[in-house]
Amino acid sequence: MRILECFDADTPRLTASQIAESTGLSRSTTHRLVTEMTSVGMLQRLDDGNLTVSVRSWETSVRCSPLEQLRELAKPVLEGLHRRFNHHICLAVPDFDSLSVLYLEHYDATYPLRILSRHASRLSIHNNSAGLTMLAFGGEKAVNRVLNGSLPARVTGEPMDPSRVRADLLQIRQQGYGHIVGGMVTENTSFAVPCFDLTDGSVQCSLGLVARTDQCDHDEVLTTLISAGRTLSRALTEASTPEVPPIFLDKSA
Amino acid sequence: MRILECFDADTPRLTASQIAESTGLSRSTTHRLVTEMTSVGMLQRLDDGNLTVSVRSWETSVRCSPLEQLRELAKPVLEGLHRRFNHHICLAVPDFDSLSVLYLEHYDATYPLRILSRHASRLSIHNNSAGLTMLAFGGEKAVNRVLNGSLPARVTGEPMDPSRVRADLLQIRQQGYGHIVGGMVTENTSFAVPCFDLTDGSVQCSLGLVARTDQCDHDEVLTTLISAGRTLSRALTEASTPEVPPIFLDKSA
Repeated sequence: MRILECFDADTPRLTASQIAESTGLSRSTTHRLVTEMTSVGMLQRLDDGNLTVSVRSWETSVRCSPLEQLRELAKPVLEGLHRRFNHHICLAVPDFDSLSVLYLEHYDATYPLRILSRHASRLSIHNNSAGLTMLAFGGEKAVNRVLNGSLPARVTGEPMDPSRVRADLLQIRQQGYGHIVGGMVTENTSFAVPCFDLTDGSVQCSLGLVARTDQCDHDEVLTTLISAGRTLSRALTEASTPEVPPIFLDKSA
Repeated sequence: MRILECFDADTPRLTASQIAESTGLSRSTTHRLVTEMTSVGMLQRLDDGNLTVSVRSWETSVRCSPLEQLRELAKPVLEGLHRRFNHHICLAVPDFDSLSVLYLEHYDATYPLRILSRHASRLSIHNNSAGLTMLAFGGEKAVNRVLNGSLPARVTGEPMDPSRVRADLLQIRQQGYGHIVGGMVTENTSFAVPCFDLTDGSVQCSLGLVARTDQCDHDEVLTTLISAGRTLSRALTEASTPEVPPIFLDKSA
């Protein structure tokens, strides 16, 4: 897993030496593990000798992941939002265990827009609208762990203080959505609405929209996003079965 | 990998005994491997004791996969087709090594439609429009391997004979697209257009559309699909870099 985690969107192809350097494993251990992982088809050696996460790894993980079931369920809603607005639309799930947010899917804005979240990547739960919104509806235990932990600064450098986060969470709970102007990217506005499994009220994911503040009709976006969130909550509730535990209980993370 | 491959969309959660049965490994070997895979975070044990492919497996494979880069590139084109037609829209890549087709993404029809391909699953390359279309443009070596192998029957039970497949491939090459009426599902029509990296002419993927034959305006679909295929080919060509080998060269499969 440490080896697989060396690869990301910026470095999809690595040499064995780069893997050794990145993991801190010795060259011989890396060599042995890489050979093993290539022989079982988890890594793939390209013609130029570089290593990459294999096609089989992708299909095996994607085929059966509950995250993909959620993505499927959300696709018509995301597509509808993207059809209506030119902004960036995204779907995120909370991981209360590691206090992070995992981005599942996104549709790009049709104009240049700086976006910090990346596909299948994570951000801390407390410094973005998707995370704060899910945290606000996610129960006191996670909130306390966030507030009692040392909060890393926002990307903008603005220090985070617990009383500010607590006030944000209270406001989100009251208004039912998250809304941050110039939070992580100065010229952007981000919105997020929580989506619930209504059978037990648990927050399963959030729908988000990020826009250039000067290109965004806030009222129109909010009305539509809140309605889209309700649609997805209904779909989640219909699809939910008691024997399938919620995906955010990722104890392995 | 054999363990990961036990899981699919129908059986996303398994017990260790089910894994042992499915892989043919002994109970003790299965137990040891499952414990190891859970400890590195590749598998995840749910509260009810069942095992599932972990969230971390999903994000690690998805984050850096060239398949996801292709899916991203194709998303606006797929979304455009889906906006225009109510039919099933899909994206597939060829795996000439294993003579199969891997389905990367799909948008559902807005009416009931029987579809045999599933998300992140494979079909044989010779018995569906996506596969035949990519095979037609994929070079003689793969064609010969298909024609000299023993061709499994179509899902409909119709036996496949090599001369029929050869004629189909010739027709696809001449007309530039694949078109099958009532092939795998009696009441359906499927179309596929190949998409190329124009720098070397290699076929990278196909755009497909599956419709109920009686609900489908064939001419309109074809015109739009061919144009969408050209758009995606241009995008693929712009995105292509000589140091990135084509994804279908999956020697590990």
